[in-house]
Amino acid sequence: MLTKAVDELSESQSYKGLFHQHRDGEPLPSARVLHEIIDLARAILFPGYYGNSTINSHTINYHIGVNVETLFNLLTEQILAGLCFGSNGDCDCLTEPKREEAARLAAAFISQLPYLRRLLATDVEAAYNGDPAAESFGEVICCYPAIKAISNYRIAHELLKLNVPLIPRIITEMAHSETGIDIHPAAQIGSYFTIDHGTGVVIGATSIIGDHVKLYQGVTLGAKSFPLDEEGKPIKGIPRHPILEDNVIVYSNATILGRITIGKDATVGGNIWVTENVPAGVRIVQPKAKK
Amino acid sequence: MLTKAVDELSESQSYKGLFHQHRDGEPLPSARVLHEIIDLARAILFPGYYGNSTINSHTINYHIGVNVETLFNLLTEQILAGLCFGSNGDCDCLTEPKREEAARLAAAFISQLPYLRRLLATDVEAAYNGDPAAESFGEVICCYPAIKAISNYRIAHELLKLNVPLIPRIITEMAHSETGIDIHPAAQIGSYFTIDHGTGVVIGATSIIGDHVKLYQGVTLGAKSFPLDEEGKPIKGIPRHPILEDNVIVYSNATILGRITIGKDATVGGNIWVTENVPAGVRIVQPKAKK
Amino acid sequence: MLTKAVDELSESQSYKGLFHQHRDGEPLPSARVLHEIIDLARAILFPGYYGNSTINSHTINYHIGVNVETLFNLLTEQILAGLCFGSNGDCDCLTEPKREEAARLAAAFISQLPYLRRLLATDVEAAYNGDPAAESFGEVICCYPAIKAISNYRIAHELLKLNVPLIPRIITEMAHSETGIDIHPAAQIGSYFTIDHGTGVVIGATSIIGDHVKLYQGVTLGAKSFPLDEEGKPIKGIPRHPILEDNVIVYSNATILGRITIGKDATVGGNIWVTENVPAGVRIVQPKAKK
Amino acid sequence: MLTKAVDELSESQSYKGLFHQHRDGEPLPSARVLHEIIDLARAILFPGYYGNSTINSHTINYHIGVNVETLFNLLTEQILAGLCFGSNGDCDCLTEPKREEAARLAAAFISQLPYLRRLLATDVEAAYNGDPAAESFGEVICCYPAIKAISNYRIAHELLKLNVPLIPRIITEMAHSETGIDIHPAAQIGSYFTIDHGTGVVIGATSIIGDHVKLYQGVTLGAKSFPLDEEGKPIKGIPRHPILEDNVIVYSNATILGRITIGKDATVGGNIWVTENVPAGVRIVQPKAKK
Amino acid sequence: MLTKAVDELSESQSYKGLFHQHRDGEPLPSARVLHEIIDLARAILFPGYYGNSTINSHTINYHIGVNVETLFNLLTEQILAGLCFGSNGDCDCLTEPKREEAARLAAAFISQLPYLRRLLATDVEAAYNGDPAAESFGEVICCYPAIKAISNYRIAHELLKLNVPLIPRIITEMAHSETGIDIHPAAQIGSYFTIDHGTGVVIGATSIIGDHVKLYQGVTLGAKSFPLDEEGKPIKGIPRHPILEDNVIVYSNATILGRITIGKDATVGGNIWVTENVPAGVRIVQPKAKK
Amino acid sequence: MLTKAVDELSESQSYKGLFHQHRDGEPLPSARVLHEIIDLARAILFPGYYGNSTINSHTINYHIGVNVETLFNLLTEQILAGLCFGSNGDCDCLTEPKREEAARLAAAFISQLPYLRRLLATDVEAAYNGDPAAESFGEVICCYPAIKAISNYRIAHELLKLNVPLIPRIITEMAHSETGIDIHPAAQIGSYFTIDHGTGVVIGATSIIGDHVKLYQGVTLGAKSFPLDEEGKPIKGIPRHPILEDNVIVYSNATILGRITIGKDATVGGNIWVTENVPAGVRIVQPKAKK
Repeated sequence: MLTKAVDELSESQSYKGLFHQHRDGEPLPSARVLHEIIDLARAILFPGYYGNSTINSHTINYHIGVNVETLFNLLTEQILAGLCFGSNGDCDCLTEPKREEAARLAAAFISQLPYLRRLLATDVEAAYNGDPAAESFGEVICCYPAIKAISNYRIAHELLKLNVPLIPRIITEMAHSETGIDIHPAAQIGSYFTIDHGTGVVIGATSIIGDHVKLYQGVTLGAKSFPLDEEGKPIKGIPRHPILEDNVIVYSNATILGRITIGKDATVGGNIWVTENVPAGVRIVQPKAKK
Repeated sequence: MLTKAVDELSESQSYKGLFHQHRDGEPLPSARVLHEIIDLARAILFPGYYGNSTINSHTINYHIGVNVETLFNLLTEQILAGLCFGSNGDCDCLTEPKREEAARLAAAFISQLPYLRRLLATDVEAAYNGDPAAESFGEVICCYPAIKAISNYRIAHELLKLNVPLIPRIITEMAHSETGIDIHPAAQIGSYFTIDHGTGVVIGATSIIGDHVKLYQGVTLGAKSFPLDEEGKPIKGIPRHPILEDNVIVYSNATILGRITIGKDATVGGNIWVTENVPAGVRIVQPKAKK
Repeated sequence: MLTKAVDELSESQSYKGLFHQHRDGEPLPSARVLHEIIDLARAILFPGYYGNSTINSHTINYHIGVNVETLFNLLTEQILAGLCFGSNGDCDCLTEPKREEAARLAAAFISQLPYLRRLLATDVEAAYNGDPAAESFGEVICCYPAIKAISNYRIAHELLKLNVPLIPRIITEMAHSETGIDIHPAAQIGSYFTIDHGTGVVIGATSIIGDHVKLYQGVTLGAKSFPLDEEGKPIKGIPRHPILEDNVIVYSNATILGRITIGKDATVGGNIWVTENVPAGVRIVQPKAKK
Repeated sequence: MLTKAVDELSESQSYKGLFHQHRDGEPLPSARVLHEIIDLARAILFPGYYGNSTINSHTINYHIGVNVETLFNLLTEQILAGLCFGSNGDCDCLTEPKREEAARLAAAFISQLPYLRRLLATDVEAAYNGDPAAESFGEVICCYPAIKAISNYRIAHELLKLNVPLIPRIITEMAHSETGIDIHPAAQIGSYFTIDHGTGVVIGATSIIGDHVKLYQGVTLGAKSFPLDEEGKPIKGIPRHPILEDNVIVYSNATILGRITIGKDATVGGNIWVTENVPAGVRIVQPKAKK
Repeated sequence: MLTKAVDELSESQSYKGLFHQHRDGEPLPSARVLHEIIDLARAILFPGYYGNSTINSHTINYHIGVNVETLFNLLTEQILAGLCFGSNGDCDCLTEPKREEAARLAAAFISQLPYLRRLLATDVEAAYNGDPAAESFGEVICCYPAIKAISNYRIAHELLKLNVPLIPRIITEMAHSETGIDIHPAAQIGSYFTIDHGTGVVIGATSIIGDHVKLYQGVTLGAKSFPLDEEGKPIKGIPRHPILEDNVIVYSNATILGRITIGKDATVGGNIWVTENVPAGVRIVQPKAKK
Repeated sequence: MLTKAVDELSESQSYKGLFHQHRDGEPLPSARVLHEIIDLARAILFPGYYGNSTINSHTINYHIGVNVETLFNLLTEQILAGLCFGSNGDCDCLTEPKREEAARLAAAFISQLPYLRRLLATDVEAAYNGDPAAESFGEVICCYPAIKAISNYRIAHELLKLNVPLIPRIITEMAHSETGIDIHPAAQIGSYFTIDHGTGVVIGATSIIGDHVKLYQGVTLGAKSFPLDEEGKPIKGIPRHPILEDNVIVYSNATILGRITIGKDATVGGNIWVTENVPAGVRIVQPKAKK
């Protein structure tokens, strides 16, 4: 009786379009390995917090050396998996040049780690300064979901700039699952960025965010609508998400939609729906509730 | 000193009502096993994506065979655990007939897998077509939280239709934890269903959703209030959640409450609270924010 | 080439402020161990549900004994890790008195477990009575994210009352990640507390919540703004979150900000932004949407 | 090409006689579970050494309680697996009475644990007194392979006396693999038994060993030859291994074969082959080597 | 202070000759993976015993299919690792042709599995018939160390015939550690081969063993001495171990050395040292011990 | 009914002498951690073979740095556990000075690692030169049980020279279990030492072995008898095992007993029992077997 279900499920008509055909020897994108990659990257960026290994200033060099080398190897494999993924079993992914391309991209990513650390240090500072409940940088790095989500985004964004397919999106979705914060890897985000609490935040692919911006939980930077092509499919790649200039604050559950601009120093109140530009310095709020 | 706490905590007065009494040999509902069950089901439904095993069209039959058999065994055990659970240690759960009932229900579920795959294929297509940022069906299957949440819901809904207790709810709560999308297993949902981003979505137990419906993050399909019985307890089983007809779109953070109907092709704007019917084709939005 | 990145990342200028210097032998706060601690605490508080071990009324005493002792040992270590954490490698954490202090705090926590069980029993009852879809206390304890989040909060709150640093916040953030419900460990919450669905709920550090309060998903109890000191940093410790008196209900996605009071028996409708007191018994709702 | 091998290997002619047909729901003898059972038994018999859990005289009762209950459950399952094993898929193993029989046997075994502890205490004492290099009872219990092998033998022997099939042999083979000491579970061995070093020791199924006997590494208590039945198969169950009376010492690599008796207080020298009775008190040695 | 040891240990003079230089991307021989390979091979050869998965005659085809495919993939990688190993970081191991060679060798091995199963069936039968204590084929397959050691040898021998370097030796050493039976993969061994108890058995690389041969524990088939080349190094590859013709029995702890022949049907007694031919049918024993 | 066994087993009379009383916070000797320690030591001593991590001459410094630091931390803990072990819950093991003593001993051990590597290099060379079947140093390091047993012995011997209790014996027993070679950590063994095959070898605590010595499987260097004190207990610490001078070869299963000397260049044949001095250069063998 199970045999009948097995036969139906094994018929090629039944799975076409849903099947990822795999070539022998080809690496697979692996959630487990990508988790390990993120853990390694966090251990390198914030020494002494993640990875649970004891570490001090005399031995930090050894630990970073091993972590960077391991990261390089795992990332090369996953980048290659990403390059293979699109081709659905019909590519030259196992050739030497493809492997060398993957290694070159992994090395390029690693050379950006010192820059990423400098950038994330500004985010930690912004989170600490923006929260009266924060007691130390250490607590922020250890506990704040915003730091987890922004770390993954900044890592994924670097990989996306290197044209690595698929992997960046998996990395931001891992943070989405962990924190409820959904930042598309293609979004552009300045320094000193912070998100308070964070659950429910959505930042779309073509969003542009300046420096010193703060979002609260439940904020959406989304698309209002998107033009369709002649087949009725959405046209890909058109700028369709908001621009937030420097020092903007958006309160909880506000929804900002479309390629509009929230000007410098503007404030958007909670629980409102914004679809038009907000001039610099302006503060908009919800109409009063009825009792 | 610890002994005092142990004694207090072991006193039967102290735990009555909170204690699940367990009979020797009875299987327990197990989050770990249910995770394994979901991983197997996803591996069967979307061959080559989950489960990390290499797989190609020559060997897919072997993999599906083993996965289906393993799924059958684990599910039989968990269904039996669900059947036992309610009885709190005082049932005939370990008898041969109960075990056979569990096996029969597991087999009935498995015979629905080809149907579930066809249905989920429509959801994947809807997610792909509805998101300009989506680059391939593969990316949607791998990364999109909506696909995870809807898969778990569709699996749980089949089990609930077979009157399996407890297990369906645990399965949808697993997806709730993973994705922030909370779909009650008793909700009825048509084909080509998609949810964008998804965190914070709530779909109540008596909701009815047509085909080609799209929800955004933070949308609630909830109950407005519920009648109490003479003891002041809510009466169970009364239809109390909305009906969304075909092609409805609900934007982010909208809250739709009560047994109302959102008519065919209607659109509900973001961040609003809807407690009355919306006629077919109509678009409702939030009043303008004040600057 | 990797060597260059390793050297840059190992330079002390590059990581100062982001580095947790660790002294040999000092315990580390460990997410893995804290997960184990929460699993043990849940197994003690709700016997027979968590921990997967078979258990019945004859052997419950053995199980609680072993679980309490293991909890005591692990918690002593993590409390010590919390005490050490702040000192950044320059403290007397490894001395006998510090270890005895940690053990004393862990024992004090354990002596509160019977009280915590009584309190959580009221929360389970509230969740069951408040949800027509709930089928048994067992289902509520097993599946409801609110019970997970409130358990972690109540555990963390007891540790915070004992002045344990860092650990309480990690514990509530673990529940935040698992459920999307973010309750600060310093909030004060009465009995019979429940949260429906829960994703996106935020309860700030100085919030005060009475008995029999119910929140829905996406509700924020936040700060409106906070006074800065002369350096422009937020002043810590000022009451800045709402007070909810007994029997208050707050519907989904409502945002209540600032040190205001929502009076006894009041109801706050969904998707609104409340920044002023709401008198006892009053019901406030969103203005009507435009069609 | 692999398909051809799969087909050949799946043909029923190819595996008949080598195939263990398994009925759904039937427990399987599991090396992993039996290892766990041995670890539990060792933790109960030698409190504080095995199992790595902290334990002291106030809490020993809780630990033994949990360990005994867990042992009972796992052992019941493995005894049932042993009862099922012989029937090769065609038995009544899953019925209630079979399960009750397994539980009854497990309980009978557990009631012998205090006796086993008393007996093993004599073996520990013998090992300590017999080895000038031994520094404490603790070192003997922790490190000496003889204690591991004799513990497994004594456990297996009790199970064999209860007519549990297969499981006793797997348990002694586990010790054989760990220590190189091969004691058949059916052998009868008195108190204060010890084996020095132990690798290569073989004690056959019908051996009878008195009290205060000591063997060195490489000693064989074997069968000389065994009568065949009319089909040329060995006749099972005939006494064919040696009897060693009280206080016998056998030095390394000696081989004692057949149903002979080594009398009280006798000594057998190393590297010799003994096939005839040795009278009480006699010492036999190898002829001198030639230079 | 640790730094000094690290520096000394990292100096290239200090580790030359002991260092395995590794090229990026090159697979490594892995004990863990080889254990998995052996488990898979045993699961294929003896269906239903190893691997713990439930299996019956309807589903055996699926299980064997998945196991064979997984075995093929893991073995290809380990064969490639073996091919790379010798070259110490200076080879063409990562090129497409090397990978194809490894895959071709793995496939050739897999095509021999049906032959290996037939051969091992004779060994199981020999073990069962030769031991009055054996109760079923099942017990022999499950428990007897001889079957484990002979399985590993027969697998390793096939790989060695395919000129796979290093891997065969690791596989037989795994069995050596597990059982104390050390069979060199290059030895040639006929059908119906069995070893009783087995600890301490050594079978050298150029040994030739006929059909229906039985060895007891501690038997050595070794080299007497070996000619040295002009540098005083042993000359490799010269026949230097014994030939045992059909039906030979060798009792425990006998040592047979050099390229001698033990003729058909001969018997060698225990604890003796044999360095000259033994004619067919003859029985040799140890001189009597002195009392 | 289980309760009765639990009560008997928890009675203090029943476990006295077999109980290891444990003080809170005290580290325990842990087989798992000691396995990790041995794996780390092997990875440091033979870079690139063990530990499975990729490693090359540019990054070897990082790997050795991390491995040495981790080894130091784990070893400090286990040495402390060894120091505590003897005191059975009544010591000052948790004080700062005890911890510092443990750290000092661990550091002293680590400073000997370069010396250990030089010594083990001679053993590898001896194994390679002594076995015509050996194909490379790499094969010897990877596969030969002798190298595993001698590595553990040399590590344990250094710890024993530092007066670390218990831990050295556990380390050599781990190799005994893995290889069947039982070398007491107190034995003194020169350079270029090798053991062929090895199963069954026993080297007693007061043995002294020169340079370039080779043993075969089953060889015992044991005590003949040992003087008892007035209570009939063996007197500890008396030299009672053989001295083997340089270049001695002992063939398989030979037993050499008592404080005798096997002179330089002597050869001892297989399967014999030696209890008297053997002069330098002499070769002794077994008397001929009878046909």
